[in-house]
Amino acid sequence: MTGPTATLLISCPDQKGLVAKFANFIYSNGGNIIHADQHTDFAAGLFLTRIEWQLEGFNLPREIIGTAFNAIAAPLQSNWQLHFSDTVPKIAIWVSKQDHCLYDLIWRHKAKEFAAEISLIISNHPDLQEIANQFGVDYHHIPINKDNKIEQEAKQLELLQKYQIDLIVLAKYMQILSQDFVSKFPKVINIHHSFLPAFVGANPYHQAYQRGVKIIGATAHYVTADLDAGPIIEQDVVKVSHRDNIDDLIRKGKDLERVVLARAVRAHLKNRVLVYGNRTVVFE
Amino acid sequence: MTGPTATLLISCPDQKGLVAKFANFIYSNGGNIIHADQHTDFAAGLFLTRIEWQLEGFNLPREIIGTAFNAIAAPLQSNWQLHFSDTVPKIAIWVSKQDHCLYDLIWRHKAKEFAAEISLIISNHPDLQEIANQFGVDYHHIPINKDNKIEQEAKQLELLQKYQIDLIVLAKYMQILSQDFVSKFPKVINIHHSFLPAFVGANPYHQAYQRGVKIIGATAHYVTADLDAGPIIEQDVVKVSHRDNIDDLIRKGKDLERVVLARAVRAHLKNRVLVYGNRTVVFE
Amino acid sequence: MTGPTATLLISCPDQKGLVAKFANFIYSNGGNIIHADQHTDFAAGLFLTRIEWQLEGFNLPREIIGTAFNAIAAPLQSNWQLHFSDTVPKIAIWVSKQDHCLYDLIWRHKAKEFAAEISLIISNHPDLQEIANQFGVDYHHIPINKDNKIEQEAKQLELLQKYQIDLIVLAKYMQILSQDFVSKFPKVINIHHSFLPAFVGANPYHQAYQRGVKIIGATAHYVTADLDAGPIIEQDVVKVSHRDNIDDLIRKGKDLERVVLARAVRAHLKNRVLVYGNRTVVFE
Amino acid sequence: MTGPTATLLISCPDQKGLVAKFANFIYSNGGNIIHADQHTDFAAGLFLTRIEWQLEGFNLPREIIGTAFNAIAAPLQSNWQLHFSDTVPKIAIWVSKQDHCLYDLIWRHKAKEFAAEISLIISNHPDLQEIANQFGVDYHHIPINKDNKIEQEAKQLELLQKYQIDLIVLAKYMQILSQDFVSKFPKVINIHHSFLPAFVGANPYHQAYQRGVKIIGATAHYVTADLDAGPIIEQDVVKVSHRDNIDDLIRKGKDLERVVLARAVRAHLKNRVLVYGNRTVVFE
Repeated sequence: MTGPTATLLISCPDQKGLVAKFANFIYSNGGNIIHADQHTDFAAGLFLTRIEWQLEGFNLPREIIGTAFNAIAAPLQSNWQLHFSDTVPKIAIWVSKQDHCLYDLIWRHKAKEFAAEISLIISNHPDLQEIANQFGVDYHHIPINKDNKIEQEAKQLELLQKYQIDLIVLAKYMQILSQDFVSKFPKVINIHHSFLPAFVGANPYHQAYQRGVKIIGATAHYVTADLDAGPIIEQDVVKVSHRDNIDDLIRKGKDLERVVLARAVRAHLKNRVLVYGNRTVVFE
Repeated sequence: MTGPTATLLISCPDQKGLVAKFANFIYSNGGNIIHADQHTDFAAGLFLTRIEWQLEGFNLPREIIGTAFNAIAAPLQSNWQLHFSDTVPKIAIWVSKQDHCLYDLIWRHKAKEFAAEISLIISNHPDLQEIANQFGVDYHHIPINKDNKIEQEAKQLELLQKYQIDLIVLAKYMQILSQDFVSKFPKVINIHHSFLPAFVGANPYHQAYQRGVKIIGATAHYVTADLDAGPIIEQDVVKVSHRDNIDDLIRKGKDLERVVLARAVRAHLKNRVLVYGNRTVVFE
Repeated sequence: MTGPTATLLISCPDQKGLVAKFANFIYSNGGNIIHADQHTDFAAGLFLTRIEWQLEGFNLPREIIGTAFNAIAAPLQSNWQLHFSDTVPKIAIWVSKQDHCLYDLIWRHKAKEFAAEISLIISNHPDLQEIANQFGVDYHHIPINKDNKIEQEAKQLELLQKYQIDLIVLAKYMQILSQDFVSKFPKVINIHHSFLPAFVGANPYHQAYQRGVKIIGATAHYVTADLDAGPIIEQDVVKVSHRDNIDDLIRKGKDLERVVLARAVRAHLKNRVLVYGNRTVVFE
Repeated sequence: MTGPTATLLISCPDQKGLVAKFANFIYSNGGNIIHADQHTDFAAGLFLTRIEWQLEGFNLPREIIGTAFNAIAAPLQSNWQLHFSDTVPKIAIWVSKQDHCLYDLIWRHKAKEFAAEISLIISNHPDLQEIANQFGVDYHHIPINKDNKIEQEAKQLELLQKYQIDLIVLAKYMQILSQDFVSKFPKVINIHHSFLPAFVGANPYHQAYQRGVKIIGATAHYVTADLDAGPIIEQDVVKVSHRDNIDDLIRKGKDLERVVLARAVRAHLKNRVLVYGNRTVVFE
């Protein structure tokens, strides 16, 4: 409908004229803006914006846009990313034994909810090989334990490179990535099965049951070196009651995990998420 | 914190360069934009935007801004409104016998949630006079029936003029305004105690109970000549069950009505609502 | 954990001693009640209850329980159903072209959320045959049009009989069952993609978009002869905004439809739904 | 409508025949049960039930019911409470400087949502005296600091005794009650302005903002010696976004706090809350 688009995600110290400068860059080169949203974090003194425009009719060739924009952006001390809507990112889904998020991501991909390619499934268990086969995705079984973590992570990194992966989705992977791994491959979205920061770490549903909460949640966040402490992209909750035992919490939680993870992955793939500090702006 | 601001709400046929043109108008006159959001309705071919900027340091005097902007806006066939954040609109709250929305609006006003003055309460019943006294707001009892509607509406319009009212909030007024009245005073927000368009008209909780719904809702909308059919500003819902009889629905519904109406009034007063056709854009 | 159980769903005119009489029936025969919930609809003068007890240690053989209970129930003018938890009902899923609910139901079945067998898929289109193959479920393509409806419904009824189906789940079947069909096979759960009674009939998402609602919903209900008017089992909603065009509503709605339909089917299969008049009690 | 009722809240080790025994006690004495709900916590081996019946036509005089019931309950090692619906409990509301929960509780009391008397307001600040005057409730200003806590709590306990208070509602009291106080007066409901156990302690909205959560919550719980760790009665949440600064979280949180606290107080007053261990059953 709108044809291929370019999107800029920009953050820079707040000052007068930013909207005008960025919009003029697009307009003076013949671009038609189809989405422009901005947010000023007054406490941090930061201006954050997302601008998307149609490439059809835009005078600059793609390979020059970045350089041209940087002439404006650099003096403003801005950080920026440039994305093209017809570039199809490659996703690796990492799983353990549970299949609900994997199935869900695959179904959404088939339903064209994600403008991406699911190129690779990695697991520390062989259990979900069959689903990978069913949908024709490569599956690599890389068992992890305390002793082999460093060498297995090396294998994982190799696969990420081989498959040219842009984004890892931890779809109930249940393992902690090493600080070293995260520094080498920082584009990782995780689904944590609690309303963070409540119930960090293992067995959040058991923790939730013990605490006697009346609501459970799920949180999708970027992975950082600190366990379950990375920037939050999306959260949602569901009511529970005394009727719900731990199995019920797990069952109800699965529905949450599926939608929360999917919304986060979709927002990321649509280049709608801008991270700054330990926070995110999710442009709508 | 940010000092007084000006806000433009603009809708016009979509075309290239709109963001740049509007932003340049602010920037070239020395304004600092603190909120800019836009939406393109591709189906309608419409561009809709809200721009807010600090008046401090802006080179144009207030009384000239409109004329100056129109020089840009008129050739674009745009509709626009200009608001200043330190203009305090005057509200008339219209009630019948129920007090929950009235109390809530007054409390929120005291809590500085609304940048407005509650100048007048009008009711077709004397019941809530005491609350008006308690909080020092003028109360006018104007009983309405089939026979006197036209003359009583004339009195109401007189009061609106006398008090220089900018916005009527129907806080459970339970009467239908005539088409003539609405055409003379079109800024009216109503709270309807159902999830519109379900249960239009009288006794929505009774209708909801009869239908056996598992969720009830409330809807805040601008009033038009068509009953309960005006542009929706805000809706919310709450779960109910077989345990809830009609009294329970009414009780639970009151909590909904209070927050839904308050959110709509606040959005309106913040100049965040743009109506087009029978729809609203609520800028966040 | 608890072993096989029996469940009674009872409705009868309210009177003193009902809880005691029903509980005594279980206790005097050595049963251990693990769930007992009741509801009195004072407006209708009806007592409605669900009682579940462990069959282990219960003195009456299964085939006699009904007769024995009827000796108590008949004088009370009660309607009752008796279910055993280890009886595995057979489900037929009816679909059209959309696959999200079908996938979801199959996944939940695999995840043991449903104590049932998915025995049969019927569709008026051939599109989802492949999914049926993938999971090894029989698929019957029975195209329906205005002219052949009566004879095709006869074929459908034949299949239901052949497969000994207990429950039809209309998982986006998009066709209206004839009054005659419903009277012959009344156990049918439908998912309607709106917050009923808003947007009855065709294209509810288009209707919702036109009305400019800020929330969309989905409704699971038993099918009756009146279109979209049967007893509601479950409803849920999700917020939408001016950003969401019709495709977005459809996409967001799919997530709703999946969970709402699944919760309704699960409640039905757990014998937790008691219909009376056009209402349901969903025991929790 | 139903006249005065009696309610038993019972917890005891699970065993056969409990429903029958309790129901028979009511029935054999001519009582008509209007609400009976039970829950078995299989992990804890506990049976928990609430039974409410009409006193009209019940053969036992009120003052004997407890003794009579104990003859059945004692051999079952049960804990039980007996309440009469026409006993009007006396509430003390404790506040600090914020008025939203106080206003809300008073309004709900006027609206007859609470079958109770608001007898006393205690505050460590003089600020809300005027509201107390407005609605004719006694207000005691008892300033608390580190040095005078013990003696001031003694004064508070004296007032509780003098006013024969049954329940303290901490409506944003912002002070920690001493362990000693809680052991002497254990019926205390607090509203904590976070989704516990996230953000225990001071300034939860600031903590929430720092963490960058996408949802905020409120929790009503019974107060125990452990800060913010008592049995949870009710929780609810609301979505927030990067648009919301700390002031917005506080504003949105107030709406949550009001309804969550009110629901908890209402459930308590309706004798619908049964505490066991650090958990609650909230019968609906």
